Amino acid sequence: MAKLVLIRHGQSEWNLSNQFTGWVDVDLSEKGVEEAKAAGKKVKEAGLQFDYAFTSVLTRAIKTLHYVLEESDQLWIPETKSWRLNERHYGALQGLNKKETAEKYGDDQVHIWRRSYDVLPPLLSADDEGSAVNDRRYADLDPNIVPGGENLKVTLERVMPFWEDEIAPKLLDGKNVIIAAHGNSLRALSKYIEQISDDDIMDLEMATGEPVVYDFDEKLNVLGKEKLGK
Amino acid sequence: MAKLVLIRHGQSEWNLSNQFTGWVDVDLSEKGVEEAKAAGKKVKEAGLQFDYAFTSVLTRAIKTLHYVLEESDQLWIPETKSWRLNERHYGALQGLNKKETAEKYGDDQVHIWRRSYDVLPPLLSADDEGSAVNDRRYADLDPNIVPGGENLKVTLERVMPFWEDEIAPKLLDGKNVIIAAHGNSLRALSKYIEQISDDDIMDLEMATGEPVVYDFDEKLNVLGKEKLGK
Repeated sequence: MAKLVLIRHGQSEWNLSNQFTGWVDVDLSEKGVEEAKAAGKKVKEAGLQFDYAFTSVLTRAIKTLHYVLEESDQLWIPETKSWRLNERHYGALQGLNKKETAEKYGDDQVHIWRRSYDVLPPLLSADDEGSAVNDRRYADLDPNIVPGGENLKVTLERVMPFWEDEIAPKLLDGKNVIIAAHGNSLRALSKYIEQISDDDIMDLEMATGEPVVYDFDEKLNVLGKEKLGK
Repeated sequence: MAKLVLIRHGQSEWNLSNQFTGWVDVDLSEKGVEEAKAAGKKVKEAGLQFDYAFTSVLTRAIKTLHYVLEESDQLWIPETKSWRLNERHYGALQGLNKKETAEKYGDDQVHIWRRSYDVLPPLLSADDEGSAVNDRRYADLDPNIVPGGENLKVTLERVMPFWEDEIAPKLLDGKNVIIAAHGNSLRALSKYIEQISDDDIMDLEMATGEPVVYDFDEKLNVLGKEKLGK
């Protein structure tokens, strides 16, 4: 029986400054680094040993993974990074302050952008300065699938092929896996794993730097879920 | 035309205390961390952009790689770890102080162990406490090939399959590669790349934390070699 640990990156500089982040490659804050190290100590105390690690191509998730693995004496395990585990792309909202955006567009509109399952944010075009099309890390992707903005539904649709091709086969093989990623890519995975409805999923909070441990049976049914509290 | 950067890990705690290290998983010293970060800044200043990163399964090399990639804004590139890039296994000498070992066995004997191409150190057996056979990171290896001690010749023989299968194909494809590893696994690679003789190779010094940049033509002939000095 395999274990899967999901961990949202520690606090980022833009979590701290209350800005929409998405695919912008913001670093961890000092508190975020401490959260990641503390999570690694919890993982070590719990005796969790991983066979494979997965993360996004965004620095805040990668560094969180590295701190967790280093603190639990397993920095040497194989690690795979994929854009499919990236945070939800927040479109033209990326970089804007959440409070100022609410003052400009109204609380209701911002609430819809943040918490609806299938409403897209205002999109970035490929010509916009912040478009991911111009970022070297997405150079091998068909430009037509590089998003200009995503809702959770679209995020889930691009996370799932990675689950199917890379993660589920490892778990079915009895291997223990850790995924360090983002609030919404982890919501997407949790929605699938726990079969949470479209209506309920946005109420699921993923705390920064808090490992969530799933136990699976050999058919990938969930036997247990435990949070390694801070 | 592809570029290859070799970097030996920054100073380790046992470089500092003058102990034989080999496969013992010793951390970087504070100075070693600073060397690795400084190397990353040199890489950034030189405008070196990598497509793939390779390292060993030993923490001091992995952390050196991560510092270099983070400082040069490319922590997101694909990374592969392999025991084939590990330091030379120093057998039963691992953990011993170099000066005390010289006092016990004589300077000449220690010089032979350290600097001959094909003399093996005293070997560890699989029953010895420090044997790599008991280390989870080598659990997928045929126990019969887990070394109990290596000379540079044996080190080169187990490094080369990784060059042939993983590194050379990337360079032939025009991709830029960084390898963060160890004094002797990098000596082995340098010996092959530069066609250095068995007699001369042990005089090649790999400075800690100093990136060495090779330029190759499309047939993997060396066009140039440059050290990014500290």
